[in-house]
Amino acid sequence: MKLIIGNKNYSSWSLRPWLLMAYHGLDFETVLIPLYSAEMPALMAKYCPSKKVPTLHDGALIVSDSLAICEYISEKYLSNNGWPSDIETRAKARALAAEMHSGFFQIRTQMPMDIREKHKTYDASDNALFAEIARIDAIWSQAVDDEFLCGSFGIADCMFAPVAFRFQTYDVALSAPAKRYQKALLALPAMQAWQDAALLETMIIKNLNI
Amino acid sequence: MKLIIGNKNYSSWSLRPWLLMAYHGLDFETVLIPLYSAEMPALMAKYCPSKKVPTLHDGALIVSDSLAICEYISEKYLSNNGWPSDIETRAKARALAAEMHSGFFQIRTQMPMDIREKHKTYDASDNALFAEIARIDAIWSQAVDDEFLCGSFGIADCMFAPVAFRFQTYDVALSAPAKRYQKALLALPAMQAWQDAALLETMIIKNLNI
Ligand SMILES: N[C@@H](CCC(=O)N[C@@H](CS)C(=O)NCC(=O)O)C(=O)O
Ligand SMILES: N[C@@H](CCC(=O)N[C@@H](CS)C(=O)NCC(=O)O)C(=O)O
Repeated sequence: MKLIIGNKNYSSWSLRPWLLMAYHGLDFETVLIPLYSAEMPALMAKYCPSKKVPTLHDGALIVSDSLAICEYISEKYLSNNGWPSDIETRAKARALAAEMHSGFFQIRTQMPMDIREKHKTYDASDNALFAEIARIDAIWSQAVDDEFLCGSFGIADCMFAPVAFRFQTYDVALSAPAKRYQKALLALPAMQAWQDAALLETMIIKNLNI
Repeated sequence: MKLIIGNKNYSSWSLRPWLLMAYHGLDFETVLIPLYSAEMPALMAKYCPSKKVPTLHDGALIVSDSLAICEYISEKYLSNNGWPSDIETRAKARALAAEMHSGFFQIRTQMPMDIREKHKTYDASDNALFAEIARIDAIWSQAVDDEFLCGSFGIADCMFAPVAFRFQTYDVALSAPAKRYQKALLALPAMQAWQDAALLETMIIKNLNI
């Protein structure tokens, strides 16, 4: 398998399936397309029919979109363990994952993932942004002690992992339970490995909105 | 089962799971919360912990988010028939559904669903909007003759159903295969029933962005 991703420092969508696959120690190769670089168009043409990363190649099958890749990986390689086994808990986990996938525009646009940056400021007087931060805090606070959003680590957690990096960069103040969850995400060996690789990247992308 | 929805004329997210459930003739009750009305806060507090529609109540279980509701319904009541049975085709269907769920901001904001309106104009010189319309055309053109996006009618089609109404309102010109698919969606008895109900609604919401 090949997972095509963007710059580890910036590509929040790429992190999600990479994390699921790395957490579970799956055997895959990573192809990194430097976003908005001169070589991007040729590499996208070669690897990504959707012209977006992440894109998964599994033999002849090509799957794009972070959430769809996670679903496929869970079905094919994780005996469906990407989601809770109980149908009701699974529905709740999918609701969280889909809420993240379809929303949080203020956080996405005003707090781009930029792992190398620290102590960045944001507009704390922006009510729409503040409401989204509060909603993340409420979701993360549901994670039980020593556990992830819906029990053991899964796809819902992967969807929120980029936000853990964003909030680290922007020094976002969180309630104690939400902070504990953020720390648990950041402490995962796979998250540390992604971060270490991001810190070694040197390309700078300005006015990013991803 | 109770499905909590917004105004049929406007609520594009609500249409998706409603259509899946209505298409399959499931037995459910609909509770309509008039969006941004004086009674909305109390009704949301009563029915929607996420403060959003659609929300499904199935006994004590409450599931929010259109995509998550569709996944749950497919698992629980449709023997997983919401998705293609072949794992690779299913991955492609999920990629389309997730692309819709997470993207198309220009279409969402510049072409709000407003079923009662006809012949509305849009900014055809907006490149970002134009690129999204072209992408929808390309996706819809993949639907095989007399079939839906990935074979028989399923969740991927439900995700694109609101766009069929949007493009009807805005007279968006489409390629012949994309047009055929749009017509197939609009001709579904469940889509006709939703439209008929929308046409009877009288509430007007301005500056809508849903
Ligand atoms: N919904 C998609 C979004 C993917 C996406 O927007 N990827 C960005 C980078 S993080 C991209 O490929 N941008 C390149 C471009 O738009 O040209 C997913 O979840 O995978
Ligand atoms: N991602 C959600 C979005 C739901 C959503 O934004 N619903 C809108 C109406 S279509 C809503 O409830 N708005 C009320 C509000 O935001 O106060 C889904 O797919 O269900």
